[in-house]
Amino acid sequence: MQTFAFILEILGTIAFAVSGAMVALKKNMDIFGVVILGIVTAVGGGATRDIVLGITPPTMFEKPIYAIIATVASVIVFLPSIRRQLTRNQKVYELTMRIMDSAGLGLFTVMGIDKAHSVGEYNLFLLIFVGVITGVGGGLMRDIMAGNTPYIFVKHIYASASIAGALVCALLWDVLGAVGAMFIGAALVLVIRMLAAHYKWSLPHAQE
Amino acid sequence: MQTFAFILEILGTIAFAVSGAMVALKKNMDIFGVVILGIVTAVGGGATRDIVLGITPPTMFEKPIYAIIATVASVIVFLPSIRRQLTRNQKVYELTMRIMDSAGLGLFTVMGIDKAHSVGEYNLFLLIFVGVITGVGGGLMRDIMAGNTPYIFVKHIYASASIAGALVCALLWDVLGAVGAMFIGAALVLVIRMLAAHYKWSLPHAQE
Amino acid sequence: MQTFAFILEILGTIAFAVSGAMVALKKNMDIFGVVILGIVTAVGGGATRDIVLGITPPTMFEKPIYAIIATVASVIVFLPSIRRQLTRNQKVYELTMRIMDSAGLGLFTVMGIDKAHSVGEYNLFLLIFVGVITGVGGGLMRDIMAGNTPYIFVKHIYASASIAGALVCALLWDVLGAVGAMFIGAALVLVIRMLAAHYKWSLPHAQE
Repeated sequence: MQTFAFILEILGTIAFAVSGAMVALKKNMDIFGVVILGIVTAVGGGATRDIVLGITPPTMFEKPIYAIIATVASVIVFLPSIRRQLTRNQKVYELTMRIMDSAGLGLFTVMGIDKAHSVGEYNLFLLIFVGVITGVGGGLMRDIMAGNTPYIFVKHIYASASIAGALVCALLWDVLGAVGAMFIGAALVLVIRMLAAHYKWSLPHAQE
Repeated sequence: MQTFAFILEILGTIAFAVSGAMVALKKNMDIFGVVILGIVTAVGGGATRDIVLGITPPTMFEKPIYAIIATVASVIVFLPSIRRQLTRNQKVYELTMRIMDSAGLGLFTVMGIDKAHSVGEYNLFLLIFVGVITGVGGGLMRDIMAGNTPYIFVKHIYASASIAGALVCALLWDVLGAVGAMFIGAALVLVIRMLAAHYKWSLPHAQE
Repeated sequence: MQTFAFILEILGTIAFAVSGAMVALKKNMDIFGVVILGIVTAVGGGATRDIVLGITPPTMFEKPIYAIIATVASVIVFLPSIRRQLTRNQKVYELTMRIMDSAGLGLFTVMGIDKAHSVGEYNLFLLIFVGVITGVGGGLMRDIMAGNTPYIFVKHIYASASIAGALVCALLWDVLGAVGAMFIGAALVLVIRMLAAHYKWSLPHAQE
């Protein structure tokens, strides 16, 4: 279980770091800007979660592994051959971004629930709230720091995908065990996001 | 007393949720964006206050009542009949926004002092600082997430109204008791904000 | 030692308050906006650091000295004779801003390490992370609240100067003692920033 959660966390770190680095590419930042935005996106949600749960200093600040992985992932995105692919072809950029951001969203949502359980919190509402904050926190910091409108407001079914994944993960925890619940919860977020983007699910706006 | 504080907190939650939902309307967000900005505005200040005071996880994340009320208030703002009133008439929008935002500011300012007292903090400077952070926190998150210049910088006498209310509330606490002090403190913030807006109280700017 | 750290902290508070007040001047804010942005920039990094380290409420919220000094420094920046110098001459503005912001960056970086040591944290990675957060936190809040692209992304060698200073300070701590390590660490940040700006050190960008 520990190993499984760790693998998910590393995957989420990579996914979010790539999304942060890609946003920095679009803004034509230098290599340091790319790495910083990659790290902030990758560790922001988890650090916020730990502070909310009273875990200080946050794990992400104690173990270098997360920052190192985020740095490596960001540098790879910045490699000339890779970044040319990403910046010259809008379609490739958008699809990669969607997959990375959605994977990070799903993985960190269930990691939030896992961490809350690990400090003895079982209140369903709290679990969902902490899951969502963990999931959306890094991307929100990325967008605010980069001066963009947060994804949470502009992308189809974003926070609601995280809420759905968090709810399913929390409810299945005792039924399927942690591994099954986390896997299904994270996959659900990813699937909902992909379907929403593909079918352009849309909700009523204020001014139609 | 407990009941009185709870009523104030619910009123503040409604007022700030409405202000957040209204900002989201202006940005032409969909129903989810409206609800998210409503919730963030309503719980942001209190959550920040709890983290500052070392109350983790913050109360707002444990008890669903605040998020539920913020959701309901935001959905009501989004109802076609209501939102048409708000978006078609700039004067109605501005007056409603000013009242809601100022009410939230006043109510959360005194709630910050109440909560600080409840964890045994009586240092006057800390009480005021925590009161102001609780008061301005939600609106600040709302404005930053929506990409607007924070109200705290553009509205007449904003943070200073919160400071005045916090000071009066803290000083009157032992004289009048919690209920009287909170009522007068919150009312003072609202009155100062309304007078400042009505008479367009203005302060020297850098470039006249 | 206590006295030395306190002096550094006061100097850093002044430097960052001036930088915040100057950004507010540029945005043509009124006197309250100038003071608020001065205070936020001056106490933002230290408050974040304390919350990250589990020191609640943060020292900056308990002792009025920091907010008072930041207020005085901001008001001085706003004095007609001073602000005219700063706003009419772009070169004077930029040089003053660079010195103040870099001094604040250096001083708060080493203050972060000092504070982490004081609560028994000696993990090198954590020390650097906390140092950098303390150093960049206030300026980041300043830029986000003012609606500017954060300095951390646009200035030559910004976060990396803080990392270098933090690393040197942490490594020299046991060799030279706290005073020497903090002095050299802070000076290094300032020197790197000044050299980088003077020689326009630049790093590869995504789109050359």
